[in-house]
Amino acid sequence: MSDLTHLDASGAARMVDVGGKAETHRVAVASGRIAMSKQALEAIRAGDAPKGDVLGTARIAGIMAAKRTGELIPLCHPLGLEAVTIDFAFEDSAIAVTASASLTGKTGVEMEAMVAVSTALLTIYDMAKAIDKGMVIENVRPIEKRGGKSGIWKAPA
Amino acid sequence: MSDLTHLDASGAARMVDVGGKAETHRVAVASGRIAMSKQALEAIRAGDAPKGDVLGTARIAGIMAAKRTGELIPLCHPLGLEAVTIDFAFEDSAIAVTASASLTGKTGVEMEAMVAVSTALLTIYDMAKAIDKGMVIENVRPIEKRGGKSGIWKAPA
Amino acid sequence: MSDLTHLDASGAARMVDVGGKAETHRVAVASGRIAMSKQALEAIRAGDAPKGDVLGTARIAGIMAAKRTGELIPLCHPLGLEAVTIDFAFEDSAIAVTASASLTGKTGVEMEAMVAVSTALLTIYDMAKAIDKGMVIENVRPIEKRGGKSGIWKAPA
Amino acid sequence: MSDLTHLDASGAARMVDVGGKAETHRVAVASGRIAMSKQALEAIRAGDAPKGDVLGTARIAGIMAAKRTGELIPLCHPLGLEAVTIDFAFEDSAIAVTASASLTGKTGVEMEAMVAVSTALLTIYDMAKAIDKGMVIENVRPIEKRGGKSGIWKAPA
Amino acid sequence: MSDLTHLDASGAARMVDVGGKAETHRVAVASGRIAMSKQALEAIRAGDAPKGDVLGTARIAGIMAAKRTGELIPLCHPLGLEAVTIDFAFEDSAIAVTASASLTGKTGVEMEAMVAVSTALLTIYDMAKAIDKGMVIENVRPIEKRGGKSGIWKAPA
Amino acid sequence: MSDLTHLDASGAARMVDVGGKAETHRVAVASGRIAMSKQALEAIRAGDAPKGDVLGTARIAGIMAAKRTGELIPLCHPLGLEAVTIDFAFEDSAIAVTASASLTGKTGVEMEAMVAVSTALLTIYDMAKAIDKGMVIENVRPIEKRGGKSGIWKAPA
Repeated sequence: MSDLTHLDASGAARMVDVGGKAETHRVAVASGRIAMSKQALEAIRAGDAPKGDVLGTARIAGIMAAKRTGELIPLCHPLGLEAVTIDFAFEDSAIAVTASASLTGKTGVEMEAMVAVSTALLTIYDMAKAIDKGMVIENVRPIEKRGGKSGIWKAPA
Repeated sequence: MSDLTHLDASGAARMVDVGGKAETHRVAVASGRIAMSKQALEAIRAGDAPKGDVLGTARIAGIMAAKRTGELIPLCHPLGLEAVTIDFAFEDSAIAVTASASLTGKTGVEMEAMVAVSTALLTIYDMAKAIDKGMVIENVRPIEKRGGKSGIWKAPA
Repeated sequence: MSDLTHLDASGAARMVDVGGKAETHRVAVASGRIAMSKQALEAIRAGDAPKGDVLGTARIAGIMAAKRTGELIPLCHPLGLEAVTIDFAFEDSAIAVTASASLTGKTGVEMEAMVAVSTALLTIYDMAKAIDKGMVIENVRPIEKRGGKSGIWKAPA
Repeated sequence: MSDLTHLDASGAARMVDVGGKAETHRVAVASGRIAMSKQALEAIRAGDAPKGDVLGTARIAGIMAAKRTGELIPLCHPLGLEAVTIDFAFEDSAIAVTASASLTGKTGVEMEAMVAVSTALLTIYDMAKAIDKGMVIENVRPIEKRGGKSGIWKAPA
Repeated sequence: MSDLTHLDASGAARMVDVGGKAETHRVAVASGRIAMSKQALEAIRAGDAPKGDVLGTARIAGIMAAKRTGELIPLCHPLGLEAVTIDFAFEDSAIAVTASASLTGKTGVEMEAMVAVSTALLTIYDMAKAIDKGMVIENVRPIEKRGGKSGIWKAPA
Repeated sequence: MSDLTHLDASGAARMVDVGGKAETHRVAVASGRIAMSKQALEAIRAGDAPKGDVLGTARIAGIMAAKRTGELIPLCHPLGLEAVTIDFAFEDSAIAVTASASLTGKTGVEMEAMVAVSTALLTIYDMAKAIDKGMVIENVRPIEKRGGKSGIWKAPA
């Protein structure tokens, strides 16, 4: 037997049956950051001023990937997301990303929020790597989850 | 204009023209880790003993996502990867992932290796989140890159 | 602030939250046409006689693309379409395409109908371009929309 | 006109309208097998012992493909599967695959179970073809279907 | 038999064999426009000022779709695009889109440029439809094609 | 160690490195059949007469899936197919499918031909299942393979 719900009694992978779960409104928020040199940070900030294309592109990439979470993560259910938003914040030597996802459904959407954050961060890496190959993606994790039978969960501070 | 090669002179996003670059053998290696509780780590290790399904599933997810990097990261070129491998290592309170990707082509494959690492880590999160919602993905970055005109690059230790 | 619902107050793109909207039966119809030489038109018509492959292929392409609208159009919601049909009509020097899409859901399906029409027209272009490179896609637009709080909308004649 | 529900009165393909059908719990089970040499069978069985990677990989491939049935089969509706499982059994000179899929929805999921079985079998072929190119996929078919207005259907023994 | 190269002698669809064609540098440019009300045009132009998100999003959508042309258009070959760019121009009551695509390969890329234009236009429609449902996509066509045995082709003025 | 080339020395799955293999012209042919009742066979044959939509749709589905083999089969390389054709033959109580795929590349295309056959057969099942749920897919296998260092391989008669 296993505490890992995605493995059956014999240890084989499966897509967990959510057929018996209640349809409730579910929200998840995840965050992460990419540490980079001052030079890369300034280039993105400046590139962002007139046209918004670095963070704008990363936002679109994150939203589009969130919708395809069920294709990327093998045991995730395909879900009809009702909303996705992605926000960025400039830190001293990093850009922070926060994503939220929500739907009315039978299973939570923390993976969708995590995929949105990861893909937005990877897109920033891709677009700035010509300036700084040494950027590092850090601290990707869910920070809040609401809905379903476990109610509200928040990541420890 | 900009040091960001994915933006043109006016700041607009574009898929950089690699038509004039030489076809060379290119390899990239990336790594990352997911920190977790002892309980989650032991469940994965134990689940891994008989059937290998947690890390086996994460490996397949990473390989499959690497092949679709050009679909996920907006300005990445679609590439015909020639090889992808993913390895895992158990640390004290984390699982480390290393991925390598290679091809003979006109552009590097560090994004493919990064996507492989990120997707493998997200899959581990998904499969163990019933035990530990507080897992954190950390330190995702390229560690080595070979081929092309810049030769060999290694991440600073 | 903006009248563009896909931008938030700061101008950033987002997938609009449809969680609070009512599930109703929604139908959308879109149309368009591709103008071409007599020679191309006759080749398609003749090719259509024995096996139906040009328009048959375009129809399948349009139906399949409609199902993937949420993957193609960045801020469209992924939807569980319940029906899609595509019809063709030969005009004097053009082929007209009409597509309808429907579902019971929280948001309209005009983008799905538009994607179906566009992809069917692009497929006709692809299959006949060896005869006539100068074909032109024209007049792609929704012509009717039913369901949801705005009721029935029809394009001005 | 036609008994083929996917063709309209004029013989054109269409995605059948399921908007008026009732949402019920629907389950489908399908099966199939791949015949192979003793040598290939033993290699898979042995490879399976330490790490489970051949059948483990085939299982993940089948589950992931089932979720994308609506992308692969032109007139299938996109569905929000609630569960997928895949099981393997070693026979004398073959490996048998059984897949089940389920959801609460307006249309059946036998195609999803069939796609899961076919893709798992193709993956086994791919992974063992270096040993035995002459493997043959056989007897792929639904074996049981429940839910919807036709109630329970079982394949004749 | 047929002048339609995508049909064989019996009229059946096929993916034309390009194996014997020469690898040359190939470029295609396509264009199109979306006619809209002054109000919609001004909202996009204004929304574009601070963050660039309407046209920026349409540009990313077009680039990403171009890479997936072989998935959308049934008989197109999967191609490794080497560059894609998309430009917009404000007209009196329309926005014009021009896309170029290029690669070194055995077949032309006009379909990739056409898919980029169409998807960018559909994305503009999607993002502005709350203001003006009556927008119309017009005049989508290739305007130039270089490379391959037919040399340079330009659309008649 | 293993004879299974898709497993490394420790038994873990990997995408085999084809970087060192020669680019040669490679062709693969695969076949299969779907057994069905006379009634289903006649409906398809009749439906095929005026518009060709059952087999025409199955052909398009098979061609499109072949192009996506690398997405479906976890350890297959993404390949730039240069040609795909699919043929059907009516038997007494079955429809036979033959597919061929080819490219100039570093690895064989038998999986692409197998995916084409399987998907065409599944599409026929889907489109005729309202008449005959008991159809069975049989005898899916490669029948010929050319190119690469193993030269010509033919399935035993």
